[in-house]
Amino acid sequence: MKVQAFENHFNQQSFPSMKKIKIAQFGLGPIGIETLKLAASKPWVEIVGGIDIDPSKIGKPLAEITGDKNCGNAPVYRSLDELIAKNKPDVIFHTAVSKVRAACDQIEPMVRHGISVVSSCEELLYPALREPELAAQLDAACKAGRARVLGTGVNPGFVMDVLPVCLTGVCRNVRAVHVQRVVDATTRRGPLQKKIGSGLAPEEFERLFNEGKTGHAGLKESAALIAYCLGWKLDELIETGKALVALQDIHTPHVSVKKGQCCGIHQLAVGRLRGEVKITLDIKMYLQAPNPHDACQIDGEPAMNMIINGGVVGDGATVASLVNAAPRILKAQPGLLLMTDIGVPSFT
Amino acid sequence: MKVQAFENHFNQQSFPSMKKIKIAQFGLGPIGIETLKLAASKPWVEIVGGIDIDPSKIGKPLAEITGDKNCGNAPVYRSLDELIAKNKPDVIFHTAVSKVRAACDQIEPMVRHGISVVSSCEELLYPALREPELAAQLDAACKAGRARVLGTGVNPGFVMDVLPVCLTGVCRNVRAVHVQRVVDATTRRGPLQKKIGSGLAPEEFERLFNEGKTGHAGLKESAALIAYCLGWKLDELIETGKALVALQDIHTPHVSVKKGQCCGIHQLAVGRLRGEVKITLDIKMYLQAPNPHDACQIDGEPAMNMIINGGVVGDGATVASLVNAAPRILKAQPGLLLMTDIGVPSFT
Repeated sequence: MKVQAFENHFNQQSFPSMKKIKIAQFGLGPIGIETLKLAASKPWVEIVGGIDIDPSKIGKPLAEITGDKNCGNAPVYRSLDELIAKNKPDVIFHTAVSKVRAACDQIEPMVRHGISVVSSCEELLYPALREPELAAQLDAACKAGRARVLGTGVNPGFVMDVLPVCLTGVCRNVRAVHVQRVVDATTRRGPLQKKIGSGLAPEEFERLFNEGKTGHAGLKESAALIAYCLGWKLDELIETGKALVALQDIHTPHVSVKKGQCCGIHQLAVGRLRGEVKITLDIKMYLQAPNPHDACQIDGEPAMNMIINGGVVGDGATVASLVNAAPRILKAQPGLLLMTDIGVPSFT
Repeated sequence: MKVQAFENHFNQQSFPSMKKIKIAQFGLGPIGIETLKLAASKPWVEIVGGIDIDPSKIGKPLAEITGDKNCGNAPVYRSLDELIAKNKPDVIFHTAVSKVRAACDQIEPMVRHGISVVSSCEELLYPALREPELAAQLDAACKAGRARVLGTGVNPGFVMDVLPVCLTGVCRNVRAVHVQRVVDATTRRGPLQKKIGSGLAPEEFERLFNEGKTGHAGLKESAALIAYCLGWKLDELIETGKALVALQDIHTPHVSVKKGQCCGIHQLAVGRLRGEVKITLDIKMYLQAPNPHDACQIDGEPAMNMIINGGVVGDGATVASLVNAAPRILKAQPGLLLMTDIGVPSFT
């Protein structure tokens, strides 16, 4: 074993330890705070500030907002312009919205200043699905400003899209991709337990789902990313959401659900090409779900049958995927990026 | 569902269907022939020739050599210069050697002519492990010629390196990576059944292994790639190989093994950092192995426990990973690339 092989690696100059990346955080809700705390633990990060509209946060040092002294004394600014005037970041972590239109409004000024963005916005995983013109416009702004934008997370962003695509990399042929995710919501934070409709009447929850007011965001984007990578121009991409009903009373520290009330969601996206089912993405998130897991079957040559026992556990993994992506996007060409365009995901 | 979202994708100009890639094949052994046949089935491929030193192949059309008319009438040339004089390829598939030194000698003239290379050379997965100077030299030649070189395959190249790295992309922290692969060699081609020592005395096989004359090539390279991606400068990387002994007589169409003779190999690579085990790669390839599978445990936050039931089946997957990589390397910056540097593996 030649130890120096690692030291002399021909590609070492691109390793993120060589130069610190200046980071700022846009949106200081729970996910934003966790993102900042994880970023602050990395030797390659220098935190230069935060941005939030909450008057109770503006002006306060990030160490105080996050309760983590590693986050330092840079403050929360009320606007991008104020942040830039003080200390321009290389990368902003954007954890503020789920809709691509709102995200583009917030992100475009950043990239025009040459600041790259990693966003948790679910629809930004594959922005051209809902907003092709906006996506093209943001891509052009990125190129003009020499910046990169990436939407990522654990789901969407990994278990139901990037990981299945990765498995197909050794396939001679792929006929269909099927993914299942089962999340035991009992182990997750309160907002998620509420988002899945816990305690609502099943018909009330399904009405909210059909109005686009609840459910897991980004499932269609996961399907669209898979379809794009595999070269499938789907004719149809349909999403449904059903309430899962409690078979007994359930109490958690966050919610109380009576037998017969909604205790979670079963959401399904199905993509078809010339009538044939090419993609099924099936996610169940409910209280006391037994055997949580992530599974994927590639119907192809070779066929593949993957399972992650226990599943990839949510919020911590979402935060990690944001932070881990920052060095990778800086190595990519400027533009609005897809997770599959940049280097293979990796702990960094 | 807006179908036009797929048509108008902002990134569509990079999709390989837009322009054919001129392909040539270097080395027309069994893997080379299968690579060429798979490439010939792709709408984005134009085959322009082959290169081999075998006088019985030189001058013959590839359709005749491969038995597949889709491979066309371009001939096998005796040298790179003869091929280039006739029709210069964009990408050469290189399936000729396992050693990085021999591979570099063959590949360097290609990249100096601006031709990119996807190679099955196992040691080229992480060339700086054994040959840091040669790797640096080949990287410089790539940049001078505006070409890319990539070593890949299914193993090394995917199941024991790229896929485990990909899983860590959603981790806040990684303490160690453990990978196991069990291959039922009974289902594989004759050369593999012989390579794993079938029918030899166990001590004879272990002597050959310790002399570097047999065993699975590239296991240390897989460990080195994982270590590089995770930023671990290993102090120690040790590989061992033991004979697995037949408990009864075994007959396949290719080999006959008596009870007590070698029927396969158990090979192990262990990487340590400051005394702590950070990476274990454990592969067993033997006749009549029950429950073949690929498994990976990430000891981290979150912990992950992945299994691919049945495992990723070998030669067809190796060929697929070579062909699928071609469009991806052409999108990357010139240089000697690692699988983790370029876009996420994907069927193409």
